[in-house]
Amino acid sequence: MSGPMFLGIDGGGSKCKARLANGNGKLLGEGVAGPANVFQDQLQAPRSIVESAQRALASAHLPDTDIKKLVVGAGLAGANIPRVARETEEWDHPFAKFYVGTDIHIACLAAHGAADGAVIVAGTGSVGYSTINEISYGGHGFPFGDKGSGAWLGLEAVKAVLQADDSLAPETALSRASESQLAASGLGIADAMVGASSRDYGALAPLVLECAQRGDPVALEIVREGAAYLSDMAEKLLGTSEGGLCLLGGLGERLQAWMRPEIVARVVPALGQPDEGAVRFAIQCYDG
Amino acid sequence: MSGPMFLGIDGGGSKCKARLANGNGKLLGEGVAGPANVFQDQLQAPRSIVESAQRALASAHLPDTDIKKLVVGAGLAGANIPRVARETEEWDHPFAKFYVGTDIHIACLAAHGAADGAVIVAGTGSVGYSTINEISYGGHGFPFGDKGSGAWLGLEAVKAVLQADDSLAPETALSRASESQLAASGLGIADAMVGASSRDYGALAPLVLECAQRGDPVALEIVREGAAYLSDMAEKLLGTSEGGLCLLGGLGERLQAWMRPEIVARVVPALGQPDEGAVRFAIQCYDG
Repeated sequence: MSGPMFLGIDGGGSKCKARLANGNGKLLGEGVAGPANVFQDQLQAPRSIVESAQRALASAHLPDTDIKKLVVGAGLAGANIPRVARETEEWDHPFAKFYVGTDIHIACLAAHGAADGAVIVAGTGSVGYSTINEISYGGHGFPFGDKGSGAWLGLEAVKAVLQADDSLAPETALSRASESQLAASGLGIADAMVGASSRDYGALAPLVLECAQRGDPVALEIVREGAAYLSDMAEKLLGTSEGGLCLLGGLGERLQAWMRPEIVARVVPALGQPDEGAVRFAIQCYDG
Repeated sequence: MSGPMFLGIDGGGSKCKARLANGNGKLLGEGVAGPANVFQDQLQAPRSIVESAQRALASAHLPDTDIKKLVVGAGLAGANIPRVARETEEWDHPFAKFYVGTDIHIACLAAHGAADGAVIVAGTGSVGYSTINEISYGGHGFPFGDKGSGAWLGLEAVKAVLQADDSLAPETALSRASESQLAASGLGIADAMVGASSRDYGALAPLVLECAQRGDPVALEIVREGAAYLSDMAEKLLGTSEGGLCLLGGLGERLQAWMRPEIVARVVPALGQPDEGAVRFAIQCYDG
């Protein structure tokens, strides 16, 4: 093997994906390991990164010891928090080089290939990034950020249903749908949701979207407010450029229906997956 | 000692207060012990209740064994959740009788004496209760309920400040005040608030109110929205009766300035403290 080998890491809250490539980006091997959100778990994340790298080497029939030759570009969930990014960069890693970026940055590099563009990822959380001016929006976390995300939709639904139970807000089909999914009603819903995680709230998002699609006024108001925020974010991300916008994550496509037409007109499909963007990031950093 | 002895328990998230009285409500002794929120800690709460009872007996120079003679009325934080109330009632207690009510119920009994009336407690959380029709509103918990409370004000402020940092919402003096109190800025605020409790959010409420008082438009919008909800709640609580409304808790009085004039016109001072209401509750239940 001549020339450096590049390893792209796509590290998220549920798994870590490694993609081994040569200097032309050609795939040599792949590996998957456990979670690598450096904000949620700074002990687990390095372990997952190394493990996914070892598995990628193994799948390419390369020895474990080659790990010290790898030029690694890692797009990591949680690395948008400045303190966390600093601490991750200071990690005593086993690689030749270790460049730290965010998950949304590598998703954006992959989505638009060599062209400039923006991405919004709306899943359990929501965050936006643009290569046009390397700006990031949102991704602040739950419960104070990530408006328009699944967790946010679920939280707003629980609020509305509890207020409706007090006759302090309109009671609609959203109440019955939430009660049915949570197998609880009235104060029992508060009981069921105490200490719930962003994922627990996100699990309610599909029913909020379904109710909105059927014209439920309370669900519609929630979904419209979330989508308006994402439209505002998209407008900032795209600025005056002509780049495209990719809507990623479990809810990206579904929320498009409520986003502003001038934003929807800019939506393009993603060209590649985040781990490919991570390889590109590694090559860019190494060459730069 | 002839006739039954009554013990009123005011059990909250920080302490449990016991008030020993005879059948006429005459004070015989008092005792204080640790937290007794039956929702937050179902092991600690019974211990605190028994300990406060023992201390009340001791302060009245009565033997420990008299505990089995006591007719207890307990107003407990967390007992508004039906499951929690049921489980608390089934407790194998050492008293002659043990009647379970909510903290807000006994606060209302104390605030209005023999007259009908309503109370809203706005502190870290928010909840309302009326003896007029024995209705309770709010008190659902954080982060999905307790609108207008200290925790809610703080959470809304953090949301607004983070959106302002993204230029997706107006940046005002509230941003600078929050940054200063949290000793953080931008994404550092998200970092500082991750995993924060309702009390942590509530600690930001005074600065939100101060900013609103100085005319900060973002803080004003938050405070007005919270106060409008409490006005709606008050309207429901008072219904068509002529009873008065007591605004209790750390923020009750301060939020009054933003509540609707027709509600403010109904506000009266509280006649007594919750532990006095708990004694009244014990006597009512025993006689009833």
